[in-house]
Amino acid sequence: MNLMQANSRVLPRSCECDNGTPDTFNSTLESPISPFGRPELGVTYEVPARSGRAVRVNRGEVLRVTNTHGTQVCDLWAFNAENLSEFYSSEHTRGSTYRVNPQAGDVLLSNRRHPILTFLEDTSPGIHDTIIAACDLARYRVLGHDGYHDNCSDNLRQALMAIGLRTGEIPQPFNVWMNIPIHNDGAVTFEPCLSKPGDYVDFRAEMDCIVVMSACPMDINNINGLKTLELHFSVHAEHASIA
Amino acid sequence: MNLMQANSRVLPRSCECDNGTPDTFNSTLESPISPFGRPELGVTYEVPARSGRAVRVNRGEVLRVTNTHGTQVCDLWAFNAENLSEFYSSEHTRGSTYRVNPQAGDVLLSNRRHPILTFLEDTSPGIHDTIIAACDLARYRVLGHDGYHDNCSDNLRQALMAIGLRTGEIPQPFNVWMNIPIHNDGAVTFEPCLSKPGDYVDFRAEMDCIVVMSACPMDINNINGLKTLELHFSVHAEHASIA
Repeated sequence: MNLMQANSRVLPRSCECDNGTPDTFNSTLESPISPFGRPELGVTYEVPARSGRAVRVNRGEVLRVTNTHGTQVCDLWAFNAENLSEFYSSEHTRGSTYRVNPQAGDVLLSNRRHPILTFLEDTSPGIHDTIIAACDLARYRVLGHDGYHDNCSDNLRQALMAIGLRTGEIPQPFNVWMNIPIHNDGAVTFEPCLSKPGDYVDFRAEMDCIVVMSACPMDINNINGLKTLELHFSVHAEHASIA
Repeated sequence: MNLMQANSRVLPRSCECDNGTPDTFNSTLESPISPFGRPELGVTYEVPARSGRAVRVNRGEVLRVTNTHGTQVCDLWAFNAENLSEFYSSEHTRGSTYRVNPQAGDVLLSNRRHPILTFLEDTSPGIHDTIIAACDLARYRVLGHDGYHDNCSDNLRQALMAIGLRTGEIPQPFNVWMNIPIHNDGAVTFEPCLSKPGDYVDFRAEMDCIVVMSACPMDINNINGLKTLELHFSVHAEHASIA
Protein backbone atom coordinates (compact mmCIF):
# COMPACT_ATOMS: atom_id res chain seq x y z
CA MET A 1 0.00 0.00 0.00
CA ASN A 2 1.54 3.32 -0.99
CA LEU A 3 0.92 6.54 0.86
CA MET A 4 -1.72 7.78 -1.56
CA GLN A 5 -3.64 4.56 -1.20
CA ALA A 6 -3.29 4.72 2.54
CA ASN A 7 -4.52 8.28 2.56
CA SER A 8 -7.56 7.38 0.52
CA ARG A 9 -8.62 4.87 3.17
CA VAL A 10 -10.94 6.25 5.78
CA LEU A 11 -11.43 3.56 8.35
CA PRO A 12 -14.57 3.10 10.38
CA ARG A 13 -14.69 5.63 13.18
CA SER A 14 -15.50 3.05 15.75
CA CYS A 15 -12.59 3.53 18.17
CA GLU A 16 -12.35 -0.24 17.84
CA CYS A 17 -9.35 -0.06 15.55
CA ASP A 18 -6.33 -2.20 16.09
CA ASN A 19 -3.93 -0.14 18.13
CA GLY A 20 -1.58 0.12 15.16
CA THR A 21 -4.09 1.56 12.69
CA PRO A 22 -5.31 5.16 12.71
CA ASP A 23 -9.06 5.76 12.74
CA THR A 24 -8.54 8.03 9.76
CA PHE A 25 -5.66 10.09 8.36
CA ASN A 26 -4.40 13.64 8.34
CA SER A 27 -1.45 15.17 6.47
CA THR A 28 1.02 13.59 8.90
CA LEU A 29 1.00 10.44 6.79
CA GLU A 30 2.19 12.23 3.64
CA SER A 31 4.82 14.52 5.04
CA PRO A 32 7.72 12.72 6.74
CA ILE A 33 10.86 14.82 7.12
CA SER A 34 12.58 12.27 4.83
CA PRO A 35 11.63 8.82 3.55
CA PHE A 36 13.11 7.01 6.56
CA GLY A 37 12.88 9.86 9.02
CA ARG A 38 16.58 10.65 9.04
CA PRO A 39 17.13 14.39 9.64
CA GLU A 40 19.75 16.69 8.23
CA LEU A 41 21.76 17.63 11.30
CA GLY A 42 21.30 21.20 12.43
CA VAL A 43 18.25 21.83 10.25
CA THR A 44 15.07 23.04 11.93
CA TYR A 45 11.91 21.11 11.06
CA GLU A 46 8.31 21.95 11.81
CA VAL A 47 5.70 19.80 13.50
CA PRO A 48 2.65 21.48 11.97
CA ALA A 49 -0.28 22.28 14.20
CA ARG A 50 -2.38 19.20 15.05
CA SER A 51 0.14 16.91 13.32
CA GLY A 52 3.00 14.53 14.11
CA ARG A 53 6.53 13.87 12.89
CA ALA A 54 8.95 10.99 13.39
CA VAL A 55 12.72 11.51 13.44
CA ARG A 56 15.65 9.13 13.75
CA VAL A 57 18.06 10.26 16.44
CA ASN A 58 21.20 8.17 16.61
CA ARG A 59 22.94 7.35 19.86
CA GLY A 60 24.82 10.39 21.13
CA GLU A 61 22.91 12.87 18.99
CA VAL A 62 20.85 15.60 20.62
CA LEU A 63 17.23 16.44 19.82
CA ARG A 64 15.99 19.95 20.56
CA VAL A 65 12.22 20.50 20.68
CA THR A 66 11.09 24.13 20.72
CA ASN A 67 7.78 25.49 21.98
CA THR A 68 7.66 28.13 19.28
CA HIS A 69 4.63 29.96 20.69
CA GLY A 70 5.02 28.85 24.31
CA THR A 71 1.49 27.53 24.67
CA GLN A 72 1.68 24.21 22.83
CA VAL A 73 1.96 20.75 24.39
CA CYS A 74 4.19 18.22 22.61
CA ASP A 75 3.38 14.53 23.11
CA LEU A 76 6.73 12.80 22.67
CA TRP A 77 7.61 9.11 22.35
CA ALA A 78 11.03 7.48 21.98
CA PHE A 79 11.37 3.96 20.55
CA ASN A 80 14.43 1.77 20.18
CA ALA A 81 15.07 2.04 16.43
CA GLU A 82 16.01 -1.65 16.31
CA ASN A 83 12.96 -2.91 18.21
CA LEU A 84 9.84 -0.78 18.49
CA SER A 85 8.53 -2.91 21.37
CA GLU A 86 11.13 -1.15 23.51
CA PHE A 87 10.22 2.46 24.27
CA TYR A 88 10.53 5.24 26.85
CA SER A 89 8.52 4.30 29.92
CA SER A 90 7.59 6.83 32.55
CA GLU A 91 6.67 4.10 35.04
CA HIS A 92 10.05 2.41 34.76
CA THR A 93 11.88 5.75 34.89
CA ARG A 94 10.20 6.68 38.20
CA GLY A 95 11.76 3.69 39.92
CA SER A 96 15.12 5.24 39.09
CA THR A 97 14.56 8.98 39.38
CA TYR A 98 12.13 8.82 42.34
CA ARG A 99 10.09 11.62 40.79
CA VAL A 100 6.64 11.51 39.21
CA ASN A 101 7.72 13.60 36.21
CA PRO A 102 11.20 14.05 34.72
CA GLN A 103 13.41 17.10 35.06
CA ALA A 104 16.58 18.21 33.28
CA GLY A 105 19.46 15.95 34.29
CA ASP A 106 17.35 12.79 34.46
CA VAL A 107 18.21 9.66 32.54
CA LEU A 108 14.98 8.31 31.05
CA LEU A 109 14.56 4.54 30.95
CA SER A 110 12.84 2.24 28.53
CA ASN A 111 10.32 -0.46 29.44
CA ARG A 112 13.35 -2.80 29.59
CA ARG A 113 15.01 -0.39 32.07
CA HIS A 114 17.70 0.63 29.59
CA PRO A 115 18.69 4.30 29.30
CA ILE A 116 16.99 5.59 26.16
CA LEU A 117 17.19 9.40 26.47
CA THR A 118 18.96 11.80 28.78
CA PHE A 119 16.99 14.97 29.48
CA LEU A 120 19.86 17.43 29.16
CA GLU A 121 18.42 20.90 29.30
CA ASP A 122 15.14 22.71 29.81
CA THR A 123 14.68 26.47 29.47
CA SER A 124 11.01 26.30 30.50
CA PRO A 125 9.73 26.26 34.10
CA GLY A 126 10.05 22.47 34.02
CA ILE A 127 6.35 21.60 34.12
CA HIS A 128 5.75 18.43 32.12
CA ASP A 129 3.38 15.49 32.38
CA THR A 130 3.86 11.74 32.20
CA ILE A 131 0.67 10.40 33.81
CA ILE A 132 -2.02 11.24 31.20
CA ALA A 133 -2.53 9.06 28.12
CA ALA A 134 -2.25 10.47 24.61
CA CYS A 135 -5.54 11.82 23.32
CA ASP A 136 -7.40 9.61 20.88
CA LEU A 137 -10.70 9.68 19.07
CA ALA A 138 -12.52 8.11 22.02
CA ARG A 139 -11.26 10.94 24.22
CA TYR A 140 -12.76 13.60 21.94
CA ARG A 141 -16.05 11.75 21.81
CA VAL A 142 -16.26 11.73 25.59
CA LEU A 143 -15.56 15.47 25.52
CA GLY A 144 -18.53 15.94 23.19
CA HIS A 145 -16.88 16.19 19.77
CA ASP A 146 -18.82 14.63 16.92
CA GLY A 147 -16.96 13.11 13.94
CA TYR A 148 -13.24 12.76 13.43
CA HIS A 149 -10.81 14.92 15.41
CA ASP A 150 -7.04 14.98 14.98
CA ASN A 151 -5.45 13.25 17.95
CA CYS A 152 -2.00 12.41 19.26
CA SER A 153 -2.51 8.63 19.07
CA ASP A 154 -3.34 8.76 15.37
CA ASN A 155 -0.49 11.24 14.86
CA LEU A 156 1.92 8.70 16.36
CA ARG A 157 0.55 5.92 14.15
CA GLN A 158 0.71 8.09 11.02
CA ALA A 159 4.13 9.60 11.73
CA LEU A 160 5.54 6.07 11.99
CA MET A 161 3.67 4.83 8.92
CA ALA A 162 5.04 7.82 7.01
CA ILE A 163 8.56 6.39 7.47
CA GLY A 164 7.50 2.79 6.92
CA LEU A 165 7.08 1.72 10.54
CA ARG A 166 4.21 0.64 12.73
CA THR A 167 3.69 0.37 16.45
CA GLY A 168 1.46 -2.24 18.01
CA GLU A 169 0.57 0.03 20.90
CA ILE A 170 0.40 3.61 22.06
CA PRO A 171 2.80 3.96 25.00
CA GLN A 172 2.38 6.61 27.67
CA PRO A 173 3.98 9.70 26.11
CA PHE A 174 6.28 12.26 27.68
CA ASN A 175 3.86 15.20 27.45
CA VAL A 176 6.36 18.04 27.19
CA TRP A 177 5.03 21.31 28.69
CA MET A 178 1.68 19.74 29.58
CA ASN A 179 0.59 21.19 32.92
CA ILE A 180 -1.29 18.59 34.97
CA PRO A 181 -0.83 19.51 38.63
CA ILE A 182 -1.32 16.67 41.12
CA HIS A 183 -3.05 18.12 44.16
CA ASN A 184 -2.58 16.99 47.75
CA ASP A 185 -5.77 14.90 47.69
CA GLY A 186 -4.67 13.05 44.55
CA ALA A 187 -6.88 15.05 42.20
CA VAL A 188 -5.42 16.16 38.88
CA THR A 189 -6.44 19.18 36.83
CA PHE A 190 -5.77 20.16 33.21
CA GLU A 191 -4.13 23.60 33.05
CA PRO A 192 -2.47 25.81 30.40
CA CYS A 193 1.28 25.56 29.69
CA LEU A 194 3.60 27.64 31.85
CA SER A 195 6.28 27.90 29.17
CA LYS A 196 7.14 30.95 27.08
CA PRO A 197 7.73 31.37 23.34
CA GLY A 198 11.03 29.81 22.29
CA ASP A 199 11.45 27.59 25.34
CA TYR A 200 13.19 24.35 24.41
CA VAL A 201 14.06 20.95 25.82
CA ASP A 202 17.15 18.96 24.78
CA PHE A 203 17.42 15.17 24.88
CA ARG A 204 20.48 13.06 24.11
CA ALA A 205 19.73 9.65 22.61
CA GLU A 206 21.28 6.84 24.65
CA MET A 207 20.48 4.29 21.94
CA ASP A 208 19.51 4.67 18.29
CA CYS A 209 15.97 6.01 18.58
CA ILE A 210 12.89 6.85 16.61
CA VAL A 211 11.38 9.87 18.34
CA VAL A 212 7.83 10.92 17.49
CA MET A 213 6.43 14.33 18.38
CA SER A 214 2.78 15.33 18.13
CA ALA A 215 1.61 18.95 18.37
CA CYS A 216 -1.34 18.05 20.57
CA PRO A 217 -4.62 18.99 18.81
CA MET A 218 -6.59 19.31 22.06
CA ASP A 219 -8.80 22.38 21.60
CA ILE A 220 -11.63 21.49 24.01
CA ASN A 221 -9.91 21.70 27.37
CA ASN A 222 -7.36 24.41 28.13
CA ILE A 223 -4.01 22.57 27.99
CA ASN A 224 -3.04 24.36 24.77
CA GLY A 225 -4.78 27.62 25.67
CA LEU A 226 -7.57 26.63 23.23
CA LYS A 227 -5.18 27.24 20.31
CA THR A 228 -3.40 24.45 18.44
CA LEU A 229 -0.07 25.65 17.04
CA GLU A 230 3.09 24.32 15.47
CA LEU A 231 6.29 23.23 17.18
CA HIS A 232 9.85 22.97 15.85
CA PHE A 233 12.72 20.53 16.33
CA SER A 234 16.28 19.90 15.22
CA VAL A 235 18.87 17.16 15.67
CA HIS A 236 22.52 17.89 16.40
CA ALA A 237 25.70 15.85 16.50
CA GLU A 238 26.25 16.79 20.13
CA HIS A 239 24.97 19.21 22.73
CA ALA A 240 27.92 21.55 22.45
CA SER A 241 27.36 21.87 18.69
CA ILE A 242 23.98 23.58 18.98
CA ALA A 243 24.30 27.16 17.83
CA MET B 1 5.55 -27.19 24.81
CA ASN B 2 3.93 -28.67 27.92
CA LEU B 3 4.33 -27.20 31.36
CA MET B 4 7.04 -29.62 32.43
CA GLN B 5 9.08 -28.79 29.38
CA ALA B 6 8.48 -25.12 29.97
CA ASN B 7 9.54 -25.47 33.55
CA SER B 8 12.74 -27.24 32.57
CA ARG B 9 13.76 -24.26 30.46
CA VAL B 10 15.83 -21.71 32.28
CA LEU B 11 16.38 -18.85 29.94
CA PRO B 12 19.43 -16.63 29.91
CA ARG B 13 19.25 -14.14 32.73
CA SER B 14 20.07 -11.26 30.51
CA CYS B 15 17.00 -9.06 31.05
CA GLU B 16 16.98 -9.01 27.25
CA CYS B 17 14.09 -11.45 27.02
CA ASP B 18 11.17 -10.86 24.79
CA ASN B 19 8.57 -9.14 26.94
CA GLY B 20 6.37 -12.24 26.74
CA THR B 21 8.92 -14.71 28.08
CA PRO B 22 9.94 -15.00 31.73
CA ASP B 23 13.65 -14.85 32.54
CA THR B 24 13.18 -18.06 34.47
CA PHE B 25 10.30 -19.85 36.20
CA ASN B 26 8.87 -20.28 39.67
CA SER B 27 5.96 -22.44 40.82
CA THR B 28 3.43 -20.00 39.35
CA LEU B 29 3.73 -21.77 36.02
CA GLU B 30 2.65 -25.14 37.41
CA SER B 31 -0.18 -24.11 39.69
CA PRO B 32 -3.08 -22.40 37.92
CA ILE B 33 -6.34 -22.41 39.86
CA SER B 34 -7.80 -24.50 37.00
CA PRO B 35 -6.58 -25.37 33.48
CA PHE B 36 -8.14 -22.28 31.90
CA GLY B 37 -8.20 -20.11 34.99
CA ARG B 38 -11.94 -20.36 35.57
CA PRO B 39 -12.70 -20.16 39.31
CA GLU B 40 -15.36 -21.94 41.31
CA LEU B 41 -17.58 -19.09 42.44
CA GLY B 42 -17.37 -18.30 46.12
CA VAL B 43 -14.23 -20.38 46.70
CA THR B 44 -11.22 -18.67 48.27
CA TYR B 45 -7.93 -19.16 46.42
CA GLU B 46 -4.42 -18.33 47.53
CA VAL B 47 -1.81 -16.29 45.73
CA PRO B 48 1.22 -17.83 47.42
CA ALA B 49 3.99 -15.54 48.59
CA ARG B 50 6.21 -14.28 45.73
CA SER B 51 3.89 -15.89 43.15
CA GLY B 52 1.12 -15.02 40.71
CA ARG B 53 -2.29 -16.35 39.72
CA ALA B 54 -4.59 -15.67 36.78
CA VAL B 55 -8.38 -15.87 37.08
CA ARG B 56 -11.20 -15.48 34.58
CA VAL B 57 -13.81 -13.03 35.82
CA ASN B 58 -16.84 -12.81 33.58
CA ARG B 59 -18.72 -9.59 32.98
CA GLY B 60 -20.82 -8.74 36.04
CA GLU B 61 -18.91 -11.02 38.41
CA VAL B 62 -17.08 -9.57 41.39
CA LEU B 63 -13.48 -10.26 42.35
CA ARG B 64 -12.48 -9.82 45.99
CA VAL B 65 -8.75 -9.57 46.76
CA THR B 66 -7.80 -9.83 50.43
CA ASN B 67 -4.66 -8.55 52.08
CA THR B 68 -4.51 -11.50 54.47
CA HIS B 69 -1.68 -10.13 56.59
CA GLY B 70 -2.22 -6.46 55.82
CA THR B 71 1.36 -5.77 54.74
CA GLN B 72 1.44 -7.25 51.26
CA VAL B 73 1.26 -5.39 47.96
CA CYS B 74 -0.74 -7.00 45.14
CA ASP B 75 0.24 -6.10 41.58
CA LEU B 76 -2.98 -6.53 39.62
CA TRP B 77 -3.67 -6.52 35.88
CA ALA B 78 -6.97 -6.90 34.03
CA PHE B 79 -7.04 -7.96 30.37
CA ASN B 80 -9.96 -8.27 27.97
CA ALA B 81 -10.39 -12.05 27.83
CA GLU B 82 -11.13 -11.84 24.10
CA ASN B 83 -8.13 -9.66 23.22
CA LEU B 84 -5.14 -9.45 25.54
CA SER B 85 -3.90 -6.31 23.78
CA GLU B 86 -6.70 -4.47 25.59
CA PHE B 87 -6.04 -4.05 29.30
CA TYR B 88 -6.62 -1.80 32.31
CA SER B 89 -4.74 1.45 31.80
CA SER B 90 -4.10 3.86 34.63
CA GLU B 91 -3.18 6.67 32.22
CA HIS B 92 -6.45 6.38 30.32
CA THR B 93 -8.44 6.08 33.54
CA ARG B 94 -7.01 9.35 34.89
CA GLY B 95 -8.50 11.28 31.99
CA SER B 96 -11.90 10.15 33.25
CA THR B 97 -11.54 10.09 37.06
CA TYR B 98 -9.27 13.16 37.32
CA ARG B 99 -7.32 11.43 40.07
CA VAL B 100 -3.76 10.06 40.00
CA ASN B 101 -4.78 6.80 41.71
CA PRO B 102 -8.20 5.09 41.83
CA GLN B 103 -10.57 5.01 44.76
CA ALA B 104 -13.70 2.97 45.48
CA GLY B 105 -16.50 4.04 43.17
CA ASP B 106 -14.23 4.65 40.18
CA VAL B 107 -14.82 3.02 36.82
CA LEU B 108 -11.45 1.84 35.53
CA LEU B 109 -10.83 2.15 31.79
CA SER B 110 -8.85 0.06 29.36
CA ASN B 111 -6.27 1.38 26.91
CA ARG B 112 -9.19 1.61 24.44
CA ARG B 113 -11.11 3.74 26.98
CA HIS B 114 -13.68 1.04 27.59
CA PRO B 115 -14.86 0.32 31.15
CA ILE B 116 -13.04 -2.84 32.22
CA LEU B 117 -13.46 -2.93 36.03
CA THR B 118 -15.48 -0.97 38.54
CA PHE B 119 -13.71 -0.50 41.87
CA LEU B 120 -16.69 -1.23 44.11
CA GLU B 121 -15.45 -1.38 47.67
CA ASP B 122 -12.28 -0.86 49.70
CA THR B 123 -12.01 -1.56 53.42
CA SER B 124 -8.39 -0.34 53.56
CA PRO B 125 -7.33 3.31 53.95
CA GLY B 126 -7.44 3.60 50.16
CA ILE B 127 -3.72 3.98 49.52
CA HIS B 128 -2.83 2.34 46.20
CA ASP B 129 -0.33 3.02 43.45
CA THR B 130 -0.62 3.21 39.67
CA ILE B 131 2.55 5.10 38.70
CA ILE B 132 5.33 2.57 39.42
CA ALA B 133 6.12 -0.25 36.97
CA ALA B 134 5.96 -3.90 38.01
CA CYS B 135 9.24 -5.15 39.41
CA ASP B 136 11.35 -7.26 37.07
CA LEU B 137 14.75 -8.89 37.14
CA ALA B 138 16.47 -5.70 35.98
CA ARG B 139 14.96 -3.86 38.95
CA TYR B 140 16.45 -6.34 41.44
CA ARG B 141 19.82 -6.11 39.76
CA VAL B 142 19.82 -2.34 40.14
CA LEU B 143 18.94 -2.83 43.82
CA GLY B 144 22.01 -5.06 44.22
CA HIS B 145 20.53 -8.55 44.03
CA ASP B 146 22.72 -11.13 42.30
CA GLY B 147 21.09 -14.01 40.37
CA TYR B 148 17.43 -14.69 39.79
CA HIS B 149 14.79 -13.05 42.00
CA ASP B 150 11.05 -13.67 41.81
CA ASN B 151 9.39 -10.63 40.29
CA CYS B 152 5.92 -9.42 39.38
CA SER B 153 6.63 -9.19 35.65
CA ASP B 154 7.66 -12.85 35.44
CA ASN B 155 4.73 -13.76 37.71
CA LEU B 156 2.37 -12.13 35.20
CA ARG B 157 4.00 -13.98 32.30
CA GLN B 158 3.90 -17.30 34.12
CA ALA B 159 0.36 -16.94 35.50
CA LEU B 160 -0.87 -16.39 31.94
CA MET B 161 1.23 -19.21 30.51
CA ALA B 162 -0.18 -21.50 33.21
CA ILE B 163 -3.63 -21.07 31.63
CA GLY B 164 -2.37 -21.20 28.06
CA LEU B 165 -2.09 -17.46 27.39
CA ARG B 166 0.69 -15.03 26.70
CA THR B 167 1.03 -11.28 26.83
CA GLY B 168 3.26 -9.33 24.52
CA GLU B 169 3.90 -6.67 27.11
CA ILE B 170 3.81 -5.87 30.80
CA PRO B 171 1.24 -3.10 31.30
CA GLN B 172 1.37 -0.68 34.22
CA PRO B 173 -0.29 -2.65 37.05
CA PHE B 174 -2.79 -1.46 39.61
CA ASN B 175 -0.53 -1.88 42.64
CA VAL B 176 -3.15 -2.55 45.31
CA TRP B 177 -2.06 -1.34 48.77
CA MET B 178 1.30 -0.10 47.49
CA ASN B 179 2.13 3.12 49.31
CA ILE B 180 4.02 5.52 47.04
CA PRO B 181 3.32 9.04 48.29
CA ILE B 182 3.81 11.82 45.74
CA HIS B 183 5.30 14.77 47.60
CA ASN B 184 4.67 18.44 46.81
CA ASP B 185 7.96 18.76 44.91
CA GLY B 186 7.12 15.78 42.69
CA ALA B 187 9.36 13.34 44.57
CA VAL B 188 8.03 9.86 45.26
CA THR B 189 9.03 7.56 48.12
CA PHE B 190 8.50 3.84 48.69
CA GLU B 191 6.71 3.25 52.01
CA PRO B 192 5.09 0.30 53.83
CA CYS B 193 1.41 -0.58 53.30
CA LEU B 194 -1.14 1.25 55.46
CA SER B 195 -3.69 -1.59 55.30
CA LYS B 196 -4.58 -4.01 58.08
CA PRO B 197 -4.99 -7.80 58.08
CA GLY B 198 -8.12 -8.85 56.24
CA ASP B 199 -8.61 -5.62 54.30
CA TYR B 200 -10.12 -6.29 50.90
CA VAL B 201 -10.90 -4.61 47.61
CA ASP B 202 -13.82 -5.60 45.35
CA PHE B 203 -13.90 -5.12 41.59
CA ARG B 204 -16.79 -5.82 39.23
CA ALA B 205 -15.78 -6.94 35.74
CA GLU B 206 -17.30 -4.70 33.06
CA MET B 207 -16.22 -7.09 30.30
CA ASP B 208 -15.06 -10.71 30.39
CA CYS B 209 -11.63 -10.37 31.94
CA ILE B 210 -8.49 -12.25 32.76
CA VAL B 211 -7.23 -10.77 36.01
CA VAL B 212 -3.70 -11.53 37.18
CA MET B 213 -2.53 -10.93 40.73
CA SER B 214 1.07 -11.09 41.92
CA ALA B 215 2.04 -11.16 45.60
CA CYS B 216 4.90 -8.73 45.08
CA PRO B 217 8.21 -10.40 46.02
CA MET B 218 9.98 -7.13 46.78
CA ASP B 219 12.08 -7.77 49.90
CA ILE B 220 14.79 -5.14 49.41
CA ASN B 221 12.88 -1.92 49.88
CA ASN B 222 10.17 -1.57 52.49
CA ILE B 223 6.94 -1.68 50.46
CA ASN B 224 6.03 -5.12 51.87
CA GLY B 225 7.56 -4.48 55.30
CA LEU B 226 10.53 -6.65 54.23
CA LYS B 227 8.29 -9.74 54.41
CA THR B 228 6.75 -11.40 51.36
CA LEU B 229 3.46 -13.09 52.22
CA GLU B 230 0.46 -14.68 50.57
CA LEU B 231 -2.78 -13.01 49.45
CA HIS B 232 -6.24 -14.50 48.86
CA PHE B 233 -8.99 -13.92 46.34
CA SER B 234 -12.45 -15.14 45.39
CA VAL B 235 -14.92 -14.55 42.56
CA HIS B 236 -18.65 -14.07 43.16
CA ALA B 237 -21.72 -13.94 40.96
CA GLU B 238 -22.54 -10.46 42.22
CA HIS B 239 -21.51 -8.05 44.95
CA ALA B 240 -24.55 -8.70 47.09
CA SER B 241 -23.80 -12.45 47.08
CA ILE B 242 -20.52 -12.15 48.98
CA ALA B 243 -20.93 -13.67 52.42
